[in-house]
Amino acid sequence: MAVIISLEGERGKPARPSAAALIALAGDDLKQVNELILQRMQSPVVLIPQLAGHIIAAGGKRLRPLLTLVSARLCGYSGRRHVALAACVEFIHTATLLHDDVVDESDLRRGLATANAVWGNKASVLVGDFLFSRAFQVMVEDGSLAVLSILSNASAVIAEGEVMQLLTANDTETSERAYLDVIKAKTATLFAAACRVGAVIADRPKIEENALESYGLNLGIAFQVIDDVLDYAAHQATLGKTVGDDFRDGKITLPVVLAYLRGDAEERRFWRRTLEDQEQTGDDLAQAVRLMEKHGALRDSVERARHYGAIARDALGVFPDGPEKRALVELVDFAIDRAY
Amino acid sequence: MAVIISLEGERGKPARPSAAALIALAGDDLKQVNELILQRMQSPVVLIPQLAGHIIAAGGKRLRPLLTLVSARLCGYSGRRHVALAACVEFIHTATLLHDDVVDESDLRRGLATANAVWGNKASVLVGDFLFSRAFQVMVEDGSLAVLSILSNASAVIAEGEVMQLLTANDTETSERAYLDVIKAKTATLFAAACRVGAVIADRPKIEENALESYGLNLGIAFQVIDDVLDYAAHQATLGKTVGDDFRDGKITLPVVLAYLRGDAEERRFWRRTLEDQEQTGDDLAQAVRLMEKHGALRDSVERARHYGAIARDALGVFPDGPEKRALVELVDFAIDRAY
Repeated sequence: MAVIISLEGERGKPARPSAAALIALAGDDLKQVNELILQRMQSPVVLIPQLAGHIIAAGGKRLRPLLTLVSARLCGYSGRRHVALAACVEFIHTATLLHDDVVDESDLRRGLATANAVWGNKASVLVGDFLFSRAFQVMVEDGSLAVLSILSNASAVIAEGEVMQLLTANDTETSERAYLDVIKAKTATLFAAACRVGAVIADRPKIEENALESYGLNLGIAFQVIDDVLDYAAHQATLGKTVGDDFRDGKITLPVVLAYLRGDAEERRFWRRTLEDQEQTGDDLAQAVRLMEKHGALRDSVERARHYGAIARDALGVFPDGPEKRALVELVDFAIDRAY
Repeated sequence: MAVIISLEGERGKPARPSAAALIALAGDDLKQVNELILQRMQSPVVLIPQLAGHIIAAGGKRLRPLLTLVSARLCGYSGRRHVALAACVEFIHTATLLHDDVVDESDLRRGLATANAVWGNKASVLVGDFLFSRAFQVMVEDGSLAVLSILSNASAVIAEGEVMQLLTANDTETSERAYLDVIKAKTATLFAAACRVGAVIADRPKIEENALESYGLNLGIAFQVIDDVLDYAAHQATLGKTVGDDFRDGKITLPVVLAYLRGDAEERRFWRRTLEDQEQTGDDLAQAVRLMEKHGALRDSVERARHYGAIARDALGVFPDGPEKRALVELVDFAIDRAY
């Protein structure tokens, strides 16, 4: 009875979407994933677990392994292989982050010093290589060529996306299309692969594999667009990273692309000076946000994210209703709701 | 008749060992490997084939893919899979070189500007990641979990070796054992894997797999030791790299380890100043070579290489005589003979 009253009491003010349902569903499995990650990042070369442990323990959301775990369950999978493969997905993600931080010359990630800031670029590159190799070792132990194919393809596409991003860095003429190509490759592809692997190990028909891949891909795009919005709009405490990082690095994200396209000649000079020439003064970040607000660039970036979120949600239509499906739908809402 | 006379005429002055027999045996296959490499390094992101093409075309010896090709033939393999897998081995090697040059901050490789010198560290890291992923994609297409296991294990060990090397860099107290551990991991392991793959695809008994792995491992050690000797002893033109590179970088190679262990207090101060503190003046490289010669450090490094070369040669004892075996034996002689 108490429960019903409590629910009614909250009806007028609906709870904000969160990843809580997802985590509740996969909590026990995720604990095992974390244990396996700790176990498999060991090496007699002690710098490797030290450095890897630093970034892996740094409080990431484990979103990608969660996707593998819940996708497998959504497909009715009842074995244990999803635990090891979720760990592989996280290893690949972590290797990418290590190399990313070297490429971006970042000092902070989620409010903590980056591995490259603590141990130097060289160690970060090499430990990234180790984690990447380790991911493939664990996949080989799992023994599925289909899974190996999905994750080796994803890895190649991610690397292509990273190189693309390097080429469009600081280029204010970057089109929305080019921006999308980059985030699809460098972020959304691993989301897609993480989900697809769940269907593959459950031995489900191609239609479910494809549905989960589409869900992951579109969720990943929405997720990255909102991340890029948050870099201009979030409170530092909630974001866990420094607001304005992308601006300071001259990254051309969707809010910039839209503000630039909608701006007049003087505004475009502002964007070129601050992002291409990287000549920034104290008030420039505030001015950037003002220009974005003037043109609705942040609002419309969220609208774009909503579009991809809607596709992700509909992709799940091939699955019957159930707690896993509801948790994955809520994750889409959560990914976008973070912007408010 | 003419042939016999010609052979007799050369008997008094035997030809120096070379890789010519190996290349002659595998020449047609190697041509196909090179074509496949060019084909599979393509990407819509044009910087990738540009940068990868630069290092792949830079005149490497293709020693590792040659080992896969000839090992397969030695095991009686008559199919075509060895071509794709030899390309995988070269992709992994190339990815390692790209990351190596970033870590070493090298400007020259085989007399040409390194990729990081031309395109920057960031692009080199990311294109390395791409080539590494591409290697796994091609292996997955080949479809052998045994091969995937060998090469993913090798990749993890290589990364461990690179991190170990980072930790022993500039440390004159490095033991011969620590030096050996590093070169085994970062060089010899891929030689071993390249050879072993040949036996695996030929579906040969474990004893032949193990023999080829031992051959590759010990050849790789001998090869790296001689490379390290050449950095102090070679003529620049024949070496294709700058003599004294290792000295200038403060790398602790076997000749240094031996000269340090055999040196007196004043000599050790010299090694610490030049390699640990990296305080070098014009005459220091010449002085380093003098100290090595005084203690027989170069000569005895070659003797150590000979020891591993002998093990490599004997490992082939399980195979009957034939042109492939003779070419692999000659390769050991060639690896060591380069020092003269």
